[in-house]
Amino acid sequence: MHTRLLIQYHIWRHSLNFTEKLDLACQSQQSMLCVGLDPDPRLMPVKNTLEFNKSIIHATHDLVCAYKPNLAFYEALGLPGLRALEGTIDYIRSVNPHLIIIADAKRGDIGNTASAYARALFDVWDVDAATVNPYLGTDSLEPFLSRPDRGVFILCRTSNTGSSEMQMLSVSHKGYQQPLYKWVALKAMEWNRLGNVGLVAGATHPTELEELRKLCPDMPFLVPGIGTQGGDLEASVRLGMNSKGRRSIINSSRGIIYASHSRDYTQAARDAAMQLRDNITRTLGHMGKGW
Amino acid sequence: MHTRLLIQYHIWRHSLNFTEKLDLACQSQQSMLCVGLDPDPRLMPVKNTLEFNKSIIHATHDLVCAYKPNLAFYEALGLPGLRALEGTIDYIRSVNPHLIIIADAKRGDIGNTASAYARALFDVWDVDAATVNPYLGTDSLEPFLSRPDRGVFILCRTSNTGSSEMQMLSVSHKGYQQPLYKWVALKAMEWNRLGNVGLVAGATHPTELEELRKLCPDMPFLVPGIGTQGGDLEASVRLGMNSKGRRSIINSSRGIIYASHSRDYTQAARDAAMQLRDNITRTLGHMGKGW
Repeated sequence: MHTRLLIQYHIWRHSLNFTEKLDLACQSQQSMLCVGLDPDPRLMPVKNTLEFNKSIIHATHDLVCAYKPNLAFYEALGLPGLRALEGTIDYIRSVNPHLIIIADAKRGDIGNTASAYARALFDVWDVDAATVNPYLGTDSLEPFLSRPDRGVFILCRTSNTGSSEMQMLSVSHKGYQQPLYKWVALKAMEWNRLGNVGLVAGATHPTELEELRKLCPDMPFLVPGIGTQGGDLEASVRLGMNSKGRRSIINSSRGIIYASHSRDYTQAARDAAMQLRDNITRTLGHMGKGW
Repeated sequence: MHTRLLIQYHIWRHSLNFTEKLDLACQSQQSMLCVGLDPDPRLMPVKNTLEFNKSIIHATHDLVCAYKPNLAFYEALGLPGLRALEGTIDYIRSVNPHLIIIADAKRGDIGNTASAYARALFDVWDVDAATVNPYLGTDSLEPFLSRPDRGVFILCRTSNTGSSEMQMLSVSHKGYQQPLYKWVALKAMEWNRLGNVGLVAGATHPTELEELRKLCPDMPFLVPGIGTQGGDLEASVRLGMNSKGRRSIINSSRGIIYASHSRDYTQAARDAAMQLRDNITRTLGHMGKGW
């Protein structure tokens, strides 16, 4: 009976589009926190990547709506790293099938190659969402966009220092001048015909986060840059959320998973995640947008 | 004795910067042809990816200066695909250590993550060069740029149809209007302090290829888009080469590796590669730039 319900749940979940899945995860978890799973052998307190990830997930899964493994860290470990990624995804699914898994892959390639990346991420790794780079244009994103149940977070205004160089360039389009990141956001609105598109908008750029929310009132935002990168949490929640106080997924990676480098790292990760989750909820409460 | 010479050769080769390595490969092979190794199970005449790649390499290695595996196709096959990539790289090295291996990965991520990607590509996969996406700015490329012996091909004017949407946007920078791809090329000149930077410039956009060669007189260009995508070979060689008739790496993937879908595919691949190589040489000859 339980198994049958679970299968029915899976079928039903895949009938939702990505934004509905995300809303469901946030609401059922009462959290907009995403934990970035970026295993770095120089920082991990244990040697085994899968063991590390499992213990972080075990310690935080009731506090988050999503996990975001960044593929770079797994690829940097060679094939054993990619096996650890496989195990990590399986483990998250087994712990809570509600949770959203975002492959932070920042992919972007020409048509037939983009199809291969979409297959790799959505069929082989079977994640719920991926980050993609818009530099190659619509046809490079189409294989991602055409999957309504999978989320496509377009890199728009990234959290790193060098991001302003190109993203803040003033571009002229149809006689109108605007920074490039805004042009990307308007494109993302076009790309969102199936309700599965989101934006990556760094917490380190609150002014632009606010501008993006004005342009795209209901689009899910993935907001990295809290913590180690110095983004302000309260401002990010306030400026990034939609009118209902939702759709702004606050990501923290290093600030949580490397909260401690000693044997107490799982407890430290849990404490850090709980504090973040609670601070997000408190800010929402102040705005009259509690759960 | 032979082994000692080979080791000395390897040490010496790694003391060259990327552009010198590339020149050496082109000159010793008398070829500017690159074969893209994009294994697609729906198109391969044999089932085993590594076997397919090996037979293509065996049939073409004397005709090319470089091979370009696109990582998407390996990732789409899951872990077995990545093992095939590992075997493919080993095989190319064993067949001819001169040859340049370009990982077509189109990576681009924030600082610490970009370092992980650079480690993945240059240390784990140990390729000679990679393609990268400039949308995230200088700090996202720094871990690649800081390796003088490894090439960094910046996506500039890509061969796909949608590429014009963003790459041809008119941007205003220091009071001067220009298309975004030209801004990227000028940035690439800045990024090239170690002589290891190149551009991806599609054969499907000959006008921009010509403009790019004017802006960056000696930079290596990786020129995809010949063949299946419809780019003109003769124009690409003529407009893309530098004043010495070099540094324009002409890539063909599907036109060579899927020249036949039957059991004669290795011979067909060899014939297609030889024809392309000879056409490139003939065009160079017409320009007075033979080998």
